[in-house]
Amino acid sequence: MTDAYAITARTTPSRLPSRVSYDRAAVHAVLDEALVAHVGFVIDGSPVVLPLLHARVGDVLYLHGSAGARVLRAARDGGMDVCVTVTLTDGLVLARSAFHHSINYRCVIAHGTATSVDSPTEKDAALTALVEAAVPGRSVGTREPNRKELAATTVLRLNLGEVSLKVRTGGPSDDPEDMDMPHWAGVLPLTTTPGRPQPADDMPASTPTPAHVIDWRRPSPK
Amino acid sequence: MTDAYAITARTTPSRLPSRVSYDRAAVHAVLDEALVAHVGFVIDGSPVVLPLLHARVGDVLYLHGSAGARVLRAARDGGMDVCVTVTLTDGLVLARSAFHHSINYRCVIAHGTATSVDSPTEKDAALTALVEAAVPGRSVGTREPNRKELAATTVLRLNLGEVSLKVRTGGPSDDPEDMDMPHWAGVLPLTTTPGRPQPADDMPASTPTPAHVIDWRRPSPK
Repeated sequence: MTDAYAITARTTPSRLPSRVSYDRAAVHAVLDEALVAHVGFVIDGSPVVLPLLHARVGDVLYLHGSAGARVLRAARDGGMDVCVTVTLTDGLVLARSAFHHSINYRCVIAHGTATSVDSPTEKDAALTALVEAAVPGRSVGTREPNRKELAATTVLRLNLGEVSLKVRTGGPSDDPEDMDMPHWAGVLPLTTTPGRPQPADDMPASTPTPAHVIDWRRPSPK
Repeated sequence: MTDAYAITARTTPSRLPSRVSYDRAAVHAVLDEALVAHVGFVIDGSPVVLPLLHARVGDVLYLHGSAGARVLRAARDGGMDVCVTVTLTDGLVLARSAFHHSINYRCVIAHGTATSVDSPTEKDAALTALVEAAVPGRSVGTREPNRKELAATTVLRLNLGEVSLKVRTGGPSDDPEDMDMPHWAGVLPLTTTPGRPQPADDMPASTPTPAHVIDWRRPSPK
């Protein structure tokens, strides 16, 4: 396995090529940090974009949804052409000029054909990966799915092959003639932060809060 | 103006209809809180999803991008069929069973035809709205765009008409037979939190940090 994804026509940037990368580890880090993927597909010629939970296992991206959703039904019939976009917003970039305002972000875009996972073994492993992707350490602190639950869940599989990563980092890029303006310029970093865990009303108060809840954070510690 | 968007075939849910709303104020609140919209469109029959900055002005959604991007070029030729999806992740829902794990979220999906904003007056107002949408109060603390910058920026306009909101709130919904399991169950709330502002290296240290930076938070105070 090489350390970069191959470049295709669809993953060649139309602008700002310096922001684009195909580095496998960098792509994986973004997919692993994000909680939600935006999955685009075409129905009756029109675009549809749905947020789905995802988990990466090697070079496979699993997408989770209920068996009832349109996207998942469509994927059962031989696969569905999808664009999966995963975006992390790292900071607001405030420049002296309105024009140079920007956002620091990391965005993975993957193209390919999503197919329904039919093998119970693969589906079981994918569901474990989905729980772990959202809350590392959680899968051993929960009841595993039974046969009925497995059947009621649809998991899509997308092999990662046509993938790119676009990243903006750093401060504002103001024009030289604006540098003496009095406006504040810089970056306001943004993070996804957990609040205080809210125990379910129907759980005994004596139930300890597990480490995977107390210590949850993004990016996850390695 | 009514207080709800009209329901269409595309905005009729295929499942969990109790989670779906068409309430105009609730839709607007989600659009106004989110920083990024995922915009889906079709190129050569295949889906493409890009993250774009957005701003809502009444029942118009403006989308921002560079004039070079494919999506924006396509929109100039008479409009482009888009699906704009805006998702806020409010919490991780941890159930006793893996199957009932979920996420609390608010997601707006808008369908329609995006067109390029050609009027300099409307484009200027849209750019001010885009800056204000990301950082309320910022537009008076920055240099306004000049004619050249206006020409170099493409703004798309989507009239909000075919719109729905899907929301999950509350704790886990475990099965009765799982209630005595020892696993912790509940919600881990998630918020987008600002870090310490990082002034640009080339700004005089004496420049005060403005209130719109110090007080930035989501949702914005009304």
